[in-house]
Amino acid sequence: MLVVLVHVQVKPDFLEAFKEATFENARCSLQEPGIARFDVLQQQDDPTRFVLVEVYRNQEATAAHKATAHYAAWRARVENMMAQPRFSVKYTGLFPDETGWKTQL
Amino acid sequence: MLVVLVHVQVKPDFLEAFKEATFENARCSLQEPGIARFDVLQQQDDPTRFVLVEVYRNQEATAAHKATAHYAAWRARVENMMAQPRFSVKYTGLFPDETGWKTQL
Repeated sequence: MLVVLVHVQVKPDFLEAFKEATFENARCSLQEPGIARFDVLQQQDDPTRFVLVEVYRNQEATAAHKATAHYAAWRARVENMMAQPRFSVKYTGLFPDETGWKTQL
Repeated sequence: MLVVLVHVQVKPDFLEAFKEATFENARCSLQEPGIARFDVLQQQDDPTRFVLVEVYRNQEATAAHKATAHYAAWRARVENMMAQPRFSVKYTGLFPDETGWKTQL
């Protein structure tokens, strides 16, 4: 599994709007066959900081995600909400094994 | 949900030993009633760096985890494998909702 941690810092006035847009993107993303998880985390000691935990079945799934309408909509909606450019770090998911990752809504 | 991202850098000679010890800890941790997930991620552009994604149902579960024999064993086993002190950042899990987090092995 390919796990991408996306680190986001949001302008304080946009916290609720960012959450709403990101939950919508997460719900749609979990419908993609190549995406096993799409978690949204908010940092406890700094609520302007978020991490998206995106778990893909393979590299192709990351490209497929970026081609979706919901990703394009999210990207446009949050563009002006960022306090600084977001960045991501890529990981290999070692544990659990491939059967253990899927979020069941 | 309380999500703790533990950032670890391992000495290059100990990568396999660290993985083995950490998988064992992860498997045992998932048996704890207060732990929904215990993922092990390895950074793709620097395989000496790992992130543990630990998802707890509440604050009490973090204390319960630190009181287990498997945590104590892991801590002792990996102590000399660290390239630098590990650090963790605490998050609130906003999405999915409480029913969506549990790893089924």
